Amino acid sequence: MVVVMAPDATPEDVAAVVAKVESVGGEAFVSAGVRRTIIGLVGDIESFHHLNLRTLRGVADVHRISDPYKLVSRQHQADRSTVWVGPAEQQVPIGPGTFTLIAGPCAVESAQQTLEAARMAQAAGATLLRGGAFKPRTSPYAFQGLGVRGLEILADVRVATGLPVVTEVVDVRDVGVVAEHADMLQVGARNMGNVGLLQAVGDAGLPVLLKRGMTATVEEWLMAAEYIAQRGNLEVVLCERGIRTFETATRNTLDISAVAVVQASSHLPVIVDPSHAAGRKDLVVPLARAGIAVGADGLIVDVHPSPETALCDGPQALEGTELRELASAVRRIPPLLGRENAREHLRPAVVG
Amino acid sequence: MVVVMAPDATPEDVAAVVAKVESVGGEAFVSAGVRRTIIGLVGDIESFHHLNLRTLRGVADVHRISDPYKLVSRQHQADRSTVWVGPAEQQVPIGPGTFTLIAGPCAVESAQQTLEAARMAQAAGATLLRGGAFKPRTSPYAFQGLGVRGLEILADVRVATGLPVVTEVVDVRDVGVVAEHADMLQVGARNMGNVGLLQAVGDAGLPVLLKRGMTATVEEWLMAAEYIAQRGNLEVVLCERGIRTFETATRNTLDISAVAVVQASSHLPVIVDPSHAAGRKDLVVPLARAGIAVGADGLIVDVHPSPETALCDGPQALEGTELRELASAVRRIPPLLGRENAREHLRPAVVG
Amino acid sequence: MVVVMAPDATPEDVAAVVAKVESVGGEAFVSAGVRRTIIGLVGDIESFHHLNLRTLRGVADVHRISDPYKLVSRQHQADRSTVWVGPAEQQVPIGPGTFTLIAGPCAVESAQQTLEAARMAQAAGATLLRGGAFKPRTSPYAFQGLGVRGLEILADVRVATGLPVVTEVVDVRDVGVVAEHADMLQVGARNMGNVGLLQAVGDAGLPVLLKRGMTATVEEWLMAAEYIAQRGNLEVVLCERGIRTFETATRNTLDISAVAVVQASSHLPVIVDPSHAAGRKDLVVPLARAGIAVGADGLIVDVHPSPETALCDGPQALEGTELRELASAVRRIPPLLGRENAREHLRPAVVG
Amino acid sequence: MVVVMAPDATPEDVAAVVAKVESVGGEAFVSAGVRRTIIGLVGDIESFHHLNLRTLRGVADVHRISDPYKLVSRQHQADRSTVWVGPAEQQVPIGPGTFTLIAGPCAVESAQQTLEAARMAQAAGATLLRGGAFKPRTSPYAFQGLGVRGLEILADVRVATGLPVVTEVVDVRDVGVVAEHADMLQVGARNMGNVGLLQAVGDAGLPVLLKRGMTATVEEWLMAAEYIAQRGNLEVVLCERGIRTFETATRNTLDISAVAVVQASSHLPVIVDPSHAAGRKDLVVPLARAGIAVGADGLIVDVHPSPETALCDGPQALEGTELRELASAVRRIPPLLGRENAREHLRPAVVG
Repeated sequence: MVVVMAPDATPEDVAAVVAKVESVGGEAFVSAGVRRTIIGLVGDIESFHHLNLRTLRGVADVHRISDPYKLVSRQHQADRSTVWVGPAEQQVPIGPGTFTLIAGPCAVESAQQTLEAARMAQAAGATLLRGGAFKPRTSPYAFQGLGVRGLEILADVRVATGLPVVTEVVDVRDVGVVAEHADMLQVGARNMGNVGLLQAVGDAGLPVLLKRGMTATVEEWLMAAEYIAQRGNLEVVLCERGIRTFETATRNTLDISAVAVVQASSHLPVIVDPSHAAGRKDLVVPLARAGIAVGADGLIVDVHPSPETALCDGPQALEGTELRELASAVRRIPPLLGRENAREHLRPAVVG
Repeated sequence: MVVVMAPDATPEDVAAVVAKVESVGGEAFVSAGVRRTIIGLVGDIESFHHLNLRTLRGVADVHRISDPYKLVSRQHQADRSTVWVGPAEQQVPIGPGTFTLIAGPCAVESAQQTLEAARMAQAAGATLLRGGAFKPRTSPYAFQGLGVRGLEILADVRVATGLPVVTEVVDVRDVGVVAEHADMLQVGARNMGNVGLLQAVGDAGLPVLLKRGMTATVEEWLMAAEYIAQRGNLEVVLCERGIRTFETATRNTLDISAVAVVQASSHLPVIVDPSHAAGRKDLVVPLARAGIAVGADGLIVDVHPSPETALCDGPQALEGTELRELASAVRRIPPLLGRENAREHLRPAVVG
Repeated sequence: MVVVMAPDATPEDVAAVVAKVESVGGEAFVSAGVRRTIIGLVGDIESFHHLNLRTLRGVADVHRISDPYKLVSRQHQADRSTVWVGPAEQQVPIGPGTFTLIAGPCAVESAQQTLEAARMAQAAGATLLRGGAFKPRTSPYAFQGLGVRGLEILADVRVATGLPVVTEVVDVRDVGVVAEHADMLQVGARNMGNVGLLQAVGDAGLPVLLKRGMTATVEEWLMAAEYIAQRGNLEVVLCERGIRTFETATRNTLDISAVAVVQASSHLPVIVDPSHAAGRKDLVVPLARAGIAVGADGLIVDVHPSPETALCDGPQALEGTELRELASAVRRIPPLLGRENAREHLRPAVVG
Repeated sequence: MVVVMAPDATPEDVAAVVAKVESVGGEAFVSAGVRRTIIGLVGDIESFHHLNLRTLRGVADVHRISDPYKLVSRQHQADRSTVWVGPAEQQVPIGPGTFTLIAGPCAVESAQQTLEAARMAQAAGATLLRGGAFKPRTSPYAFQGLGVRGLEILADVRVATGLPVVTEVVDVRDVGVVAEHADMLQVGARNMGNVGLLQAVGDAGLPVLLKRGMTATVEEWLMAAEYIAQRGNLEVVLCERGIRTFETATRNTLDISAVAVVQASSHLPVIVDPSHAAGRKDLVVPLARAGIAVGADGLIVDVHPSPETALCDGPQALEGTELRELASAVRRIPPLLGRENAREHLRPAVVG
C-alpha cells in the first residue's frame, strides 16, 4: 500500500502514520517530495486495513497496490486452469487449448421443448446443455421457471443426449436439490453479490459457472470467485454477459475486453454469453464470433425450437440459419487461435 | 402496448399481429402511417407478453406503455404512504409531512461502541438506530460482522435508548433471527435482485428498508419492492444510496433525482443514504442537505464514536463538528418544506 | 508519482526505472516489499510523463499523485474565488457568500418572448439573464437558433431590464461577435473538449460559464477550465448539468456530489443547471432546492412565458406555480447556509 | 409518433391533442384502452415536434417511432456503402467485401519516426496511414502535436510509401490546411458534437473518419454523421473506439456490439480502434481480432518504432511480436467472413 500525504501535512502527521504502521508489525518507507510526501508500506495488508489510515490527520489518499484476490489470481497460479464438467465417464473441458459451446433453452418449459433444444444444440457442436429451471426475473409477474420439475426434465435430457447439464441456482436453499440433478451450478448476474449463495455453491462439490454482475468491475467479479474458492472449490468458470451502460440499442454492452483482462489477472477459464448481452437475435452471431476471436474459452448461447412461443427471452434465441452460422463460427475460428473443439477432448472414462 | 411495424412490413404481417392479439382476447387498433404502421393493443398485458410479438415477421419494436409494477404504484394508491417503525408504544413514522433521521454505526463492533454511537445519533436528532450485525462485503477477507451477537447488542441498545432498530439481513436463512431482534429489516444494495430474500422479508411481518441496487434503474427498484408487496407487506421504505457511474471522485454518484422520480411514480416513502454514496466524510453533510432539500422523507447516516478505529467504512462516519452540522440541517431545512421532525410525531401507545 | 513494479520484476528492472528518473533530474525512492517493489518519484512531473515509464520492463502500474491542474486548483489558491459579471456599473457576483440565480429562455425566439422571459426571471430573483442565440443541437433538423439576430435581442433586453447576459458560443469563429453582445460566454457540455474554443474564450476578456461535459469526470472538467485559465482568464464559473448514466427516467443524472468535490479541489465558483439535467418540469424545483442545499454558488434555470410553444426544450421550462416555488427556495434556503442573494451584492458603480 | 395519455386524461385532453395534430395537417388515430388512451400520429414528424405535445394537459409520454436520421439511414439506402480513400491513381476501399487496416503513429514526432512507423504498418498489411499532427489532449500541459510541420511530414511519407493519409482535424480553422495535405479527415471522439467542425469537414470534399464520442449513443453518432451528410458529403466512415463505463481496468469499454448495430441501421462503413479503447498494448491484438470477427469493415491501430520514447500513448502502440500477431489476424480472419484484404482491391487508376 502507498499512503499519499496532503500538501499541508506536517512531519508529525507523517510520523503518526509511520508509528501506526509499525504498531502492527509493518514497515514504512517515507519519500519526501517537493510538494507531497509518499509513504510505501510493506507487511500484512489485512492488518493495514484495520488501521483506517485514511482517517488520520494529513492523509490525502491510500492506494492499494497488489490484487485483493489471492486464490483465483494468476499471481497465485501462473498457468491457466481447465475446469472439467460432467460425470466421470464423459467429462467436458473448459479452458485453454479447447473451445466449448454450451447451448440450450433459456428456460425449461417442457420435456419435449428441452429435448428438441438439446438436439439442436448438440447438432451445432455443443458439448454442454444449459437450461433454466429456477428463473430470476425482474418482475414478479413473469414466468419464474418450473422448479424441481424442470431439474428432472434436464436430468432426463442429459441421459437421452449424453450432454452434461449446467443450470442456475437462485436461492441458497435450493443448492442441494440443484446439485443432485446438475453437473455444474450457475450463479447468475443478479446474484454475483449474494455471499451466502457463493459460499453454498463453493461447498456443493460441483463446478460453478459465475456470471459477472451487471455492473460489477472485473475486480469485484474476481472477488466473488474468491468467495467460492475460499470454500475449497477452484472449479470456477467466469462468464461475461454484458454490463450496464448508457447505450440503449442493446440490452447490455458486451465487455469483450473483460475476457482479455480476466485472462491476464486470473487463472480461471472465462466464457462469453452473447445472447443475454444483446437481447436481439440478429446480434448474437456477430457477438459470438467476437467472443471466440477475443480468446474466450467458450460460449453459452440460447437456442429454442420455436422462439415465437418461448416463455422467456424468445427474441434472443437462435434456430435455423443463425444457429448454422454459429456452428460454422465455432468450427472455423477457434483453430486459428490454437484451440480445438472441446468435443475432441472429452476425458475418457477412468477405468476402474 | 404499442407494436411498431417495420417499414417493409406487409399487410399480411399486420394482420398476423392483429390475429395473435385477438387470440388472447385483446383488441388491436391499427394506425397506418406513410412509412410505418403502428398497432395499439388494449387488454391484458400479461397475456400479450406471452405472445412474443417481437419475434413475428415485420415487427420492428414493441413498447410497453403502463407501469410494470402495480401494488407499489401511485396509480394504485394516489396518496403517499407513511410507514411506522417500532414497538406499539413508540412507533416512528417515515413518510410525507415528517422528516426522519436514522443513524448509527456501519457495523456493530461492541456493546460500548454501539451504545455510544446510539447516544450520538439520538443527540443529533435520530429517532431510529441503524447498525450492521451481518455485513455483506466485497472481499471475503474483510470484517463480516458479529452476527447474532451483534443482534443481541442492538436489542440491548434499543432498551437503553428507546430507539427502534433497523439492521440488514444478507442471507435468507437469517431472516427469522434478525426479525426477532430488530424493528425493521434492511435489504442492501447488493441483494436488491435476490428474489428469495425479497420474498422472505415480505413474509416476515416487519417493515422493510429496501436499498437501491448499485446499478438498478428506478423501475427495477420498484419491481423489487413489488416482490415484497406481493407477499402482503406494503410497509416498504426505499433508500437511494448512489449508483455506479464513470466518476471516480466519489464511491458512487448519489442520484438525487431518483427521490423525486420515485415520489411521482410510487406511494412508498423514500430516504437518502449520503454516507455510502460518498464514501468520504467531507461530502456527507452537503449530500445530506441536498437529500433533505430534494424532498426525501428521511436520511440514514453512519456515525461512530471513533472513526479511526472503525472496522467498517470508518472514512465516512460522522462525529464532532460534522455531526453537529448534520443535526442543524435536519432541524432547519425540513420545516421549509412543510415537514416536522419525526420526533414530534411518535405514535402514542395504543391504550388497551 | 509512484511506480509499482510487477511481482516478477528483477533488481535490474528497478535499477532501470531509477536511472530513467534520474536522467531527467528526478529522485527515486525505492520501497522493496515482500511481493512487490514501489518507487516514489520526486521532481518535475511533466518530465516524468515523457519517460513512458509504463512501457519499461517490470513496471506494473504508474500512479499520479498530485492534481494534474494547477491554475484552477485550490492548492494554487486556497480561498474560493468570486467571479463578477456585467458592466462596471452593475456587476453581479458569483461565488462564496452569495447566491446567484441565472434564468431565461433556453432559446431566444423573438424580442417579445425574450423580454417576457427576462421579466419573469427578474421577478423570481434572477440577477443574470440566460438565453441561447446559437443552439448546438443533436439533430441537424432541429431549430439551431436565431444567430446574430438573437444576440441583438439579448442586448436589447439587457438594456430594458438591467440584467447582464450570459449566452452560449458554439463555434470558435463566433467568439468575437458573441463577446460584443454578451457579458459572459457559455461553453456548453458538448464543447467542453473543444480545445480551440476553450482557448478562444480564454482570450476574449469576458467571464466564462463552463458546463461539464456529459461524461466528463470532475478532473477532466477542471482540465478544461485550466485551458481557459492558461490564456490568463481565471474568471471561470463551472456548471454541473447532469451526467450520462444507465438511468432513463431522467435525461441526465444530476451529479450533485460534484459541487462539493469541485469546491474541495478548485477555487472556482460552481453552479447547478437543474433544467437540462432533468428534462422534465416537475423535477426542476426539487433539483434546484438540492443544488442550493448542497452548497452551489448559484443556479441556471430555463423559464419561458409559454412553454407549450417553445422552439427548444419546452418540457423543462418553468412558469407560474413552479417558478414561484423556485423563487421561494432561492429566497429561503441560501440564508441557512450563510449566503445572501446576489441582488444585495451588486457591485456599486466605480465612481469616476 | 405515438402519444400516450395519462390514466386520468379526460376526453377533452384527447380531443385537444387530436386538434393540435390536425392543425398542422397530420392525422391522429385514437386507441382507447382500459386504463390509458394511445394516439398514433401520421404525417410530417418535424411539424409535430414544434407542437410540444409533451406539455399538453393529460399527455404522459411521446414516443418517436422512426429513425431521426435520414441520409445515413439504411432505410434511405439499403445497400451498404463503400468509401474510397486516396488519390485517383491508388484508391483504397473501406466497406463490405473488403477488410482495411489503417495504421501509424498516434502522433507525428519526426520525419524518421513517421516513415519507420509507416513502413511497419505497410509490412503488417496496412493500406492507409494514420498519424496525428494536431492532437486534442485532456491536459494543456501535454504534447499538442507538430501542427502544419506534422502535416508536411505525413505528405512526404505518403509519397515515399504510396499510403494515403488520414489525420485528425481539431479546429474548424484548420480544415483547409489539413485538407491540402491529407486524403481523409478524422473527427475525433472529443469533437463528435462540434457542429461547426462537422459541417466544415462536410464541405471539404474529402472522405471523413468520424469517431464515436466517448459517451455518445449509436443514435447520436449517426446524427453527427447526418450533419456531415447534409453538406452533400456521404463519404463518411464511422469508427468505434470505446465508450465510458464504470470499468477501470481498461481506458474505455470497446462497444463491439455497436458495429453490428450500426450495420443494421446505417449504410455507412464502420471500423474499430482497439488501441484507444484499451490503452494497454496487451489488449490491442485480442480486441483487434474481436473487431474483425464481429464484422467491422476495418481497423485503425497505433504502431510506433520505439513505444518507450513515444510522445503520445506509448503504452498502447504495437511493434514486434504483437504487430506480427495483428498482421496474422488481419490476413486470416476476414476471409472466413467473406472479406478480402483491401490491398487486393485498390482501384486502378482511371485511364484518361
